[in-house]
This record gives sequence, C-alpha cells and structure tokens, in this order.
Amino acid sequence: MYIPAHFKEIDPGEIAAVIAAAPLATIVAQTGDGLIANHLPLLATPDGTMIGHVALANDMHRQIAAGAEVLVIFRGDDGYVSPNFYPGKAIHHRHVPTWNYQVVHSYGTISWQHDDHAKRAAVGLLTRLHERRVNGAQGWRMADAPADYMAEMLAGIVAFRIAVHRTLAKSKLSQNRDAIDHAGAVAGLAQTGKAGLAERMRGHGPGRKGG
Amino acid sequence: MYIPAHFKEIDPGEIAAVIAAAPLATIVAQTGDGLIANHLPLLATPDGTMIGHVALANDMHRQIAAGAEVLVIFRGDDGYVSPNFYPGKAIHHRHVPTWNYQVVHSYGTISWQHDDHAKRAAVGLLTRLHERRVNGAQGWRMADAPADYMAEMLAGIVAFRIAVHRTLAKSKLSQNRDAIDHAGAVAGLAQTGKAGLAERMRGHGPGRKGG
Repeated sequence: MYIPAHFKEIDPGEIAAVIAAAPLATIVAQTGDGLIANHLPLLATPDGTMIGHVALANDMHRQIAAGAEVLVIFRGDDGYVSPNFYPGKAIHHRHVPTWNYQVVHSYGTISWQHDDHAKRAAVGLLTRLHERRVNGAQGWRMADAPADYMAEMLAGIVAFRIAVHRTLAKSKLSQNRDAIDHAGAVAGLAQTGKAGLAERMRGHGPGRKGG
Repeated sequence: MYIPAHFKEIDPGEIAAVIAAAPLATIVAQTGDGLIANHLPLLATPDGTMIGHVALANDMHRQIAAGAEVLVIFRGDDGYVSPNFYPGKAIHHRHVPTWNYQVVHSYGTISWQHDDHAKRAAVGLLTRLHERRVNGAQGWRMADAPADYMAEMLAGIVAFRIAVHRTLAKSKLSQNRDAIDHAGAVAGLAQTGKAGLAERMRGHGPGRKGG
C-alpha cells in the first residue's frame, strides 16, 4: 500500500479504533485457486492475534494451508473530497479532487482449529463483544440456545487464529492541508453525509506535510 | 469467496448499485513483494472495464505487471445481526449471531496508461461522476484549475484500466430467514445505526432458502 509520510498512521490507539469500529475484515490469500478474499468479523487481541471462525462449507480453510500468510484488511469510513470544499480553491484554484479513508493492513499466518474448545472460545469472544455493543446487559449468550442446537451450529464451523507479524496503517484525512482548507474539507464531508469520516478528520489536525 | 446459493447476487442492477454506492475499491494483487492492496475509487463502465488512476509514487504500477490479474473488491454497508433481533428467537431460541453485508469481487487484468490523453480521461470521468453527486451543476471541472497546475498534477499520476473477466457477488441480507425474522432483522439493524443496510435488506425479501 502506498503511504506518503503524512498519511502514515502509527498511533496504536487509532489503529485499534479503526479495527473496533469496522471489525468485518477482508481476509485475502494467494492460493492454488488464485487470489481469494472472504469477509469475516475478527477480534483483535492485545497480543497481536486475531480470532475468528468460518463455515465448514467455506473452502477457505481448505484453500489456505495452516501457516500460510494472509493479508487482513480493516477499513473505516471513506468519502470523496471535492476541490470546492477548500476555501483556498476560490483564491488560487490549485486543488484537485481526492478520496479520504482509513485502512489497516495486517499480515499474519493463519492456523485452523477444529476442536470444540477453540470453536466455543471464538464464538463466545466475538459474541460477547458485539452483544455488549448492541444489547448491553441484555445481550444474547450461547447458553441462551438449546445445547443440541449449539452443538449442531458449532459442528458447522472452523475456528482460526491469525498471528500478525506486520501492520501498515493509513489515515488519509486531509491532514496535509492548511488549517482553513482542512476545516473546509471536514465541513464538506459532514455536509455530504460523511459525519463519521469528518469526526476522524477532526482528530487528525492540519498542516502535516510529512517528509 | 464462500457464497451459499441463497446469498448469491446475480442481479446486474444490484451489483452496479453496490459499486455505485461504494466506489472506493480495494485492488489486490500477488506480486514479487507479496500480497499487496491499494484503495482507489474506480469507475465501472457498462462494457466491464474499470477505470482509475494512481499516484506515480505508488509502487503498485511497478509491482503489478501489465496484463497481470488483480482482484477488485467493492463492499457496501455491513452490520452485526443479533439473535435478539429475530422474534422467532423468543419462541425456539434456535438462532445464532451473524453478520450482514454486500460485496462484489471482480477479477480482471490491469493495463497501465502513461499518456496524457488517458490520464485526462480517467480524471475527467471520475471527477464528473463524483462532482455531480456532491455539487450538482456547480461541480468542479478540470478546466477550473490553471493549466500549468493541472499539467503538473497529471504528470504525477498513472491511469489504468482493468478488463474484468469474472465477477462474484454476495448479498448476505437475511433473505434466508422467514418473513417475521427477516422483518425483525431489518428493524434491529435500523435501530443500531445501520439504516443503509436495513434498506438493502428490504430489497432482498425473506424465505430464500436456495439450494
């Protein structure tokens, strides 16, 4: 991924926030069947391991050998930045369109887990995270379902872990603009239905030229 | 990508709508430097060609040889589906969490274009599309910028085209649920900040079991 210095994201808190806000990862691998990608919610643990599970019917766990490298992509909000958003455009007209976004690329090796313990752990950890967000204390738990039904569901999945060894992150948020044009871009995105992206831009101040 | 029959998207209009709503593509390739991915807005033409441009400083046009295959991913809205969203859960408790999303995977061969004509065409087509959406008749045009500035900007990019030969699309939108649980999932997503996703789900009716 092309990352100019001023767009390089090195703040671990910001990287964790991108993943937390957009946990549906795109997992890419080169296989004997060519390039494949699957979209799966992942849990990123503090030690750099990512945890997930996949349907047994999904060929991905047959196509990607244990220990093979995968690229895991998390992407936050994105939006078109019109030159008209920049107050400076009306003065010197030296602006072109661009696109803002945040993305995290993690490279790691995958391992597959067919044992019941690992599968229950993967489902349990992901469920707890997302149920808390959506339903708070009334969150669904695995124990709410009949035991025979859960056993049947767990028999239909494979758990996996990805040991991440390299992460690249990019926050392309107009932080290379001066204060006036940065503020104009924030306002323009907010006015064109991209309030979430505008909020991330506010956290990435203007004037970063990088080098 | 794993696509159960009931989630396979074959409607060309729906596929075009996913791309139009989320034009920032993830372009993935296997290269001598390993798996790489870049995020670039693309214009999908009716003849199956995708048009874009990239910074000259982006190694992608050196890492991916002309004629090489790339995987282009477009992804629409996504969201967590809690078992609590389904009215049927309160009766039989036979539901587990899942994640809804729409995605288009296009495989094609890329070609790079360094000539001024192709670069102006790529920038002009993409700009026209997005300026119309954001600014209507007051849209920015390349001619608004000084000629020397545009020439300098164009000198810093490379245009490309991707000739698509295969497209796989998936609409995972609870259409495999019965009418009551489908409606509950639509309401649950809408109530948890996923109004766009809920709207796509309304367009993918319940009861599709596929085969």
